[in-house]
This record gives sequence, C-alpha cells and structure tokens, in this order.
Amino acid sequence: MTGIRIGLLLFPDLTQLDLTGPHEVFRAAPGTATLLLAKTLDPVCIAGGLRILPDTTLAGCPQLDVVCVPGGPGVNAAMEDASLLDFLRAQAAGARYVTSVCTGALVLGAAGLLRGRRATTHWAVHDLLAAFGAVPTEGRVVRDGNLFTGGGVTAGIDFALTVVAELFGARVAQAVQLQIEYAPEPPFDAGSPRTAPAEVVEVVRARGAAMRARREEIVARTASRFDGAGRMM
Amino acid sequence: MTGIRIGLLLFPDLTQLDLTGPHEVFRAAPGTATLLLAKTLDPVCIAGGLRILPDTTLAGCPQLDVVCVPGGPGVNAAMEDASLLDFLRAQAAGARYVTSVCTGALVLGAAGLLRGRRATTHWAVHDLLAAFGAVPTEGRVVRDGNLFTGGGVTAGIDFALTVVAELFGARVAQAVQLQIEYAPEPPFDAGSPRTAPAEVVEVVRARGAAMRARREEIVARTASRFDGAGRMM
Repeated sequence: MTGIRIGLLLFPDLTQLDLTGPHEVFRAAPGTATLLLAKTLDPVCIAGGLRILPDTTLAGCPQLDVVCVPGGPGVNAAMEDASLLDFLRAQAAGARYVTSVCTGALVLGAAGLLRGRRATTHWAVHDLLAAFGAVPTEGRVVRDGNLFTGGGVTAGIDFALTVVAELFGARVAQAVQLQIEYAPEPPFDAGSPRTAPAEVVEVVRARGAAMRARREEIVARTASRFDGAGRMM
Repeated sequence: MTGIRIGLLLFPDLTQLDLTGPHEVFRAAPGTATLLLAKTLDPVCIAGGLRILPDTTLAGCPQLDVVCVPGGPGVNAAMEDASLLDFLRAQAAGARYVTSVCTGALVLGAAGLLRGRRATTHWAVHDLLAAFGAVPTEGRVVRDGNLFTGGGVTAGIDFALTVVAELFGARVAQAVQLQIEYAPEPPFDAGSPRTAPAEVVEVVRARGAAMRARREEIVARTASRFDGAGRMM
C-alpha cells in the first residue's frame, strides 16, 4: 500500500527551503510517498541556482492526499499560470489537505482556494492575502479546516511537523522532530519584523520593495478574476 | 569580484536538509557564490528520493573560502572514499573555514581534520567523534578556530547563520534570518533526546541501531589509518 501521497509543487525560481524543509519532514514519516510535481520532467532551476529534478508531471500526477505549494520569486509567474491553477483546483477538490508554505499561499489565492479562509504567508506580503478574500491571520502555521498555511520559508518545517501530527499523531511527529534534531537555537532574535532590529527590517523591506510592488499588481489582476462568491469570472 | 566562495559537498544518499538549509542561508547573503560539488555532473540521488544537480566536479573545483560537508546515510561510503578525503584535505589546507553539518563531521574526522579539535554532530553518533581524536562537544553549533560544526540536520540553519555572521557581521546575518522568517516555533519539544518523551527516544534509537552499528565499524576502521599525531599511515 502506498500510504499517504504528498505532492510538492516544483516551479522555476521557487525558494528551495520552502520545499526542502517540508520534504525532509514528510519523507521521514513512515508510510508517506512524497512527489515533486512539475510541468515537465526537466530539471527545475531554483532561486539561488540549485537545480532539482521533478518526480512526475502535473498531467501524470495521481490524486494527492496532501497538495503543497511552496513560495519564492517564481510565485509571480505561477499566480498567472492558468494550467497550474487548474491543476491546483482539481487536486484540491479531492485532497484531504490543501497547503502552502511562504508565498505559496498567493498561488492558492490566485486559484480561488482561500476565499473566506484564515491563512498566513511570508510577513512581507501577509496583507495581500485579503485581496483573494482570505482572512490574513497571524501565526507560524495557520489551520482552517483542511487548509494549512505556513509563514515564510523556515516556517515550512513547523508546518510539516504539524501536518505529520495531524496525519499520524503526535508521537510520529515527535520522532521525526528528534531524528532531524529540531531544537532550534537561532543565533539572533531577528526572525520576525517584531523582534529584528529596526534597521534590519528597513534593509530587508527596501531590498524587497520592487518585488512587493510587482506582487501587488499581479495580486490585484488575478484577484479580479473572481466574483464576490469566489467563482472565476 | 566573486566574493566568498562556499562549497557544499553533494554525495549520494545524503540528508538533503543538511545541505539545503545552509544553501538557502548562504545564497541569501550578498557577495557569496555557493557551489554544489560532486564527483561528476550527473544528478545526485538523495536519501528520500530527491535528485539534485551539482554545479562543479571535485576535480574542477577552485579553492573554496568555506568548505562544508553535510551528513546522511551516504556518510558511510564517504568516510572510506579516498579521493573525496584527499579533496577535503587539499581544500581544508587553503580554506578560511572548514565546516560540517550533522554526520558530515564523521567525514571530516575520516579525513583527519578533527584531530584535537572540539566538534559536534548528530546526537545519535556524537560520541563517535572521539575515535578521530576530536573532542566531542555539546552544542547546536561548535566553533574551534576555523572549524565550525553543526548538530543534526536542522542545526544547519543555525550553523549557516553563525558562519554568515562571522563572514559579514551580525547585521547581515540578521537580515538573512528575517528574510527566511527564522523565528522557529516547533509544535513539540522533542528535538533533542534530553527533551523528547522517553518512548520517542527509544523508537528513534531502535530505528537507527543498525545504521549506528555499521558506523561504529567504519569509524573504527578509518580512524585506525591515522597515527597518534593525526598523520595518515
């Protein structure tokens, strides 16, 4: 028996740790099959230069138990990729859990899958979720029914442990946590805009300002494709 | 100018998060070039099924500023791979920093690079470092001169932020930490054998017992290749 089938979307220019953090956690849980899904079987080039090979194409992907969308710069193109959004809607209709890490939530939003749901994403674009009819909610991992969303990048590890606990119980998740020695000790307390030094927040915001502006445009355009009831127009 | 050149060793059956955690941190620091190093340019198959493409061969690798060895099941073969150990010794002689994550420390040990140095590794094999003449030292990240070693798997993120702070200063490391939203909130307190429930520690130890036994043999064999002064015999 194949157990629980988990699919992680692999698209160009994603942030690899959004995907690799959950992949490590999911694959360490017994009884899971974790698949990397892409349009073709060609290597996918990731932000920062890493190249990863997909396991299956979107067209050849079986129904998943868990569908997960990571984030990254490539989210901008993904939000306007009609066939990708169709794939997500079709999978979401049959999946037990619909999930995202980081700005992957914007892709779920563009697919119309966040309407009326509480969700989180990377702090730098958290407010943009509202354009998709979502309820932007503070939290490292936010659950609303069968929707699990994680915050930025490294939140994917907390997110995946939460999903493993939901699927298999706390003891299995704790065994994974011990195996990956997840007893974090960040050398600084700078992981959130609430705790980072003000000048560091300013630097990171300034560096991301152009990306944020492009995202605002794309979110406005893709969000307008849905009517008030969340149906595509 | 190329800035700081960081090489991460990519070998079959490594634990990908040992490598991908640091890769995300390093590539987010301005002025770094992060290379994945392997024997050939063929895709490398990782524990759990992920396949990653190397950037350069060991033979074609320029002198690195930082050399980093991740861990995983494939460490067993790596510890007895003479050409790999030669590569590490040659790089270590010219590198500013010699580093490892998780059981990658065993490979540094097999290369004779831990003799008389304080070091850490995954909790399940921490004591084995002594066979290589290292001083096994508790700590998420342990520094001894130009040697930085990280604990198991997820410690690679703490490790890499520590190295970035060393290379570029605290402000740069804090900006990376904020960008990757590293404000961890593990859903359980089970990331260390000191805090995990006893039955969970028992399960994980039992699951790893065969691997631990094989490692003891290989460590004993490779450690015996060095004389009392750490020279290869």
